[in-house]
Amino acid sequence: MERIAARRRPGRPQREVGGIAQRPWKQLTRPYAPIEVLSADQVQAIHEMGLTILEEIGMRVLQPRARQLYRAAGCTVDEGEMRVRFDRAMVMERVAMAPSSFELRARNPQKNVKVGGRHCILSSVGGPAYVMDNDRGRRPGTYAEMCDYLKLIQSFNVLHQEGGGPFEPLDLHQNTRHLDLYYAEITLLDKNWQPQALGHGRAIDALEMVAISLGTTRENLAREMPVFTGIINTNSPLQLDEPMAEGLIALAEHGQVNVITPFTLAGAMSPVTLAGALSQQHAEALAGIVLTQIVRPGVPVMYGGFTSNVDMKTGAPAFGTPEYTQAAQITGQLCRLIGVPFRSSNVTAANAVDAQAAYESAMSLWGCLMGGANLVLHAAGWLGGGLTASFEKLVIDAEMLQMMSAYFDPPVVDIDTLALDAVREVGPAGHFFGAAHTMQRYERAFYSPLVSNWDNYDTWVERGQITARERANVIWKRMVAEYEQPPIDPGIDEALRDYMERRKREGGSPLN
Amino acid sequence: MERIAARRRPGRPQREVGGIAQRPWKQLTRPYAPIEVLSADQVQAIHEMGLTILEEIGMRVLQPRARQLYRAAGCTVDEGEMRVRFDRAMVMERVAMAPSSFELRARNPQKNVKVGGRHCILSSVGGPAYVMDNDRGRRPGTYAEMCDYLKLIQSFNVLHQEGGGPFEPLDLHQNTRHLDLYYAEITLLDKNWQPQALGHGRAIDALEMVAISLGTTRENLAREMPVFTGIINTNSPLQLDEPMAEGLIALAEHGQVNVITPFTLAGAMSPVTLAGALSQQHAEALAGIVLTQIVRPGVPVMYGGFTSNVDMKTGAPAFGTPEYTQAAQITGQLCRLIGVPFRSSNVTAANAVDAQAAYESAMSLWGCLMGGANLVLHAAGWLGGGLTASFEKLVIDAEMLQMMSAYFDPPVVDIDTLALDAVREVGPAGHFFGAAHTMQRYERAFYSPLVSNWDNYDTWVERGQITARERANVIWKRMVAEYEQPPIDPGIDEALRDYMERRKREGGSPLN
Repeated sequence: MERIAARRRPGRPQREVGGIAQRPWKQLTRPYAPIEVLSADQVQAIHEMGLTILEEIGMRVLQPRARQLYRAAGCTVDEGEMRVRFDRAMVMERVAMAPSSFELRARNPQKNVKVGGRHCILSSVGGPAYVMDNDRGRRPGTYAEMCDYLKLIQSFNVLHQEGGGPFEPLDLHQNTRHLDLYYAEITLLDKNWQPQALGHGRAIDALEMVAISLGTTRENLAREMPVFTGIINTNSPLQLDEPMAEGLIALAEHGQVNVITPFTLAGAMSPVTLAGALSQQHAEALAGIVLTQIVRPGVPVMYGGFTSNVDMKTGAPAFGTPEYTQAAQITGQLCRLIGVPFRSSNVTAANAVDAQAAYESAMSLWGCLMGGANLVLHAAGWLGGGLTASFEKLVIDAEMLQMMSAYFDPPVVDIDTLALDAVREVGPAGHFFGAAHTMQRYERAFYSPLVSNWDNYDTWVERGQITARERANVIWKRMVAEYEQPPIDPGIDEALRDYMERRKREGGSPLN
Repeated sequence: MERIAARRRPGRPQREVGGIAQRPWKQLTRPYAPIEVLSADQVQAIHEMGLTILEEIGMRVLQPRARQLYRAAGCTVDEGEMRVRFDRAMVMERVAMAPSSFELRARNPQKNVKVGGRHCILSSVGGPAYVMDNDRGRRPGTYAEMCDYLKLIQSFNVLHQEGGGPFEPLDLHQNTRHLDLYYAEITLLDKNWQPQALGHGRAIDALEMVAISLGTTRENLAREMPVFTGIINTNSPLQLDEPMAEGLIALAEHGQVNVITPFTLAGAMSPVTLAGALSQQHAEALAGIVLTQIVRPGVPVMYGGFTSNVDMKTGAPAFGTPEYTQAAQITGQLCRLIGVPFRSSNVTAANAVDAQAAYESAMSLWGCLMGGANLVLHAAGWLGGGLTASFEKLVIDAEMLQMMSAYFDPPVVDIDTLALDAVREVGPAGHFFGAAHTMQRYERAFYSPLVSNWDNYDTWVERGQITARERANVIWKRMVAEYEQPPIDPGIDEALRDYMERRKREGGSPLN
């Protein structure tokens, strides 16, 4: 604890939580040109192949209303096979209706976030089954532990959005636990948060509760700034199932953002070649984007890229691989081609918060951030192929994200920073510690780390040879202990509780 | 051991050492445009400021012959202050004489390497005082341990060059241990290797021994393909000391490559602003490049960027920071501006092979590889701010470098890889494991890792919860055990031993 306290400097510009220096809240904006992995011709070839797949093979769509919507918009529907085939010109007409940028509303308007262009939202891990920390290993999580995790998500300035529930609170009933999750997301955070877009009922509950939290009504949401990015996974290859179609339609009808995310692991749910996997990903993404624009022309929508590969020796999914990095950056190219914002992820297959977890996450983050991602889901906390939300990985990722955020602030080059006077003052063989130029700037000059230890070896040994994973454990515990809940209007809080209690009495929203 | 053996697949295309799958030997070539952190105007401003520093303040040059060479070439020299001042036009005339690309010779001609353009050499860690592994922690190293480390450098296909001695063998006398190092570099490796360019004597010993190993003479070296990249550090700020000037002159006279590398830690040996630190770095690098072109116009030379920052709270150097990444990429821009190849490094301040070591190395590697580095020194093995060569970090870095090498092979996009037939064959809701397209390609389809573990959590627990650092320990021991020495002509071996013995009898090459 002492070592972390030593990092504190009274009056530093960074906002501090629990004595832990952080960079201030700020949305990420990429100042550098995106990395282009493929030539324009090659990107076009993948795009055309996606359209060909939609035209010739089409999508299997399990929900009748979705098929009906596609048919009404001009698609060819084979009801027996539940197969929808798409005219390529019609696809591009619908895609052209989607806006290339928009804004998302948070309970605290200062935490509204921009989507599109060079803007990027960093979102916490969503959806794992398990929770894990250094002290108790991996286990099914409880609601209390989930609330601790949400408190950390609120506390990290570098996170702009909560990612839809960090893990399942298994001490709560499965038909109603989404209500407790939504209540916790609204009241423990004042940031934008994600709903569970799985089926009609859960989507409607999220829309009702977010409307209450923002002082509006569910009916009015579609006329206001959108608040939700709901994750819609196609069942790759080429299938859209009932709960996802229901969630998509409910969100689009209410003017909310669907994030159409095919789960295309090359070699398993898509072709073994990256070009083939991305063509299929593109077909599935386009099919979902088209459905949102049929439901409500002009509604914002995002293109989610998740293409990675499996280990062909075991069938296990691999994450943060070179193929993942390339796939993310090519997906960015496809998104820029069709003018739809791009969602990606920070992923690793590692089961421990070790060097592998860090280097696979680094490959993911460089892939998506330099590929032009506008939303990075699972940006902090994901471990073990996404089955686990780790407390320590959350802290390690926050450090990596802060470092990328600082890297995205290019240095100022002007007469003051070029520092000729300082070089004149010091001259050959001197040092700059005491130079006037240094004294004026040293407090804000450099990135100040959260987890990294820069002690020399002897000091590091003296202080117990503490690794990054152990330092992360100390940091999150202190941050939970010192968490401060953002204020909420007592009337809103009561209305939320009333809604939640009523829906629980009604049995919640069972998933079939 | 079993788990690593399980990765083996007979007949795989990768060359395997000790049952450990590796990518084949191949020089890195960056297929993507470099990241441009600054605008062309801003890069020009730093360049001009570097020239202004050389013109107005100049360099303190401690060696009389170097001052004499500068004076003869038109510099203004103040002998009392040992200060050399440079006309900016003269600087650029000399810099223009340096070639923008060249090739380096190895004992095995198949391991010659290209320098310049989009080519990149990955070199092992050079210069640490200590060695470290999981079993015995950090300690002063012996010659036998150093030879084990060199065997690993030979065994990793992803390393193209040995970096000048991984650590000091403290069981050997300091005046002669460079001779044993050179002998080990020549005989345990058939790759290109680095000399110690510290003083005249050690440089000449390296030149003599490399000439013997290549069947030539020291006098003839300058007429042949260069073999050496010698690291020349200026004593920042703005000073060139005697041993470095001697090493530089000896290498340049023999047609060898000097890598002029100012050690400019912002806030300590250079201004606290990145623009200022880089201006000073640029001045020092230009001064060194000019000296090589005075000694021998047209001799190849490299520009080494090492600008990082100190922790302003403690004065400790920080590595792999966002500032380091920006500095590396801006240095790449400066190198492209003046047409001189660019050297950078893979660095971390971490003392353990933990998540910090990996994420700081990732920041360094993405910085330099996407910044256009032509030589990455310390690409594998560096730990603890460069004071330590770690056996496990060597393996972790080899994995990270292999991943970058695979990322630098963009996917093929053609009618076969676009895989329409495979998507037709599988259709909606199927899987691709057994598709003909998959079966034809799965063995070579994806990057095959060295260290990464992709087991699911339960399997990982069953197999002992082994972390990346522990897996790296198993890997390097097996690779040392299964190392095979590259053949050498017995006559050359004898001549090398004779030279070494004679020089030892003469007392070696004391450093002053």
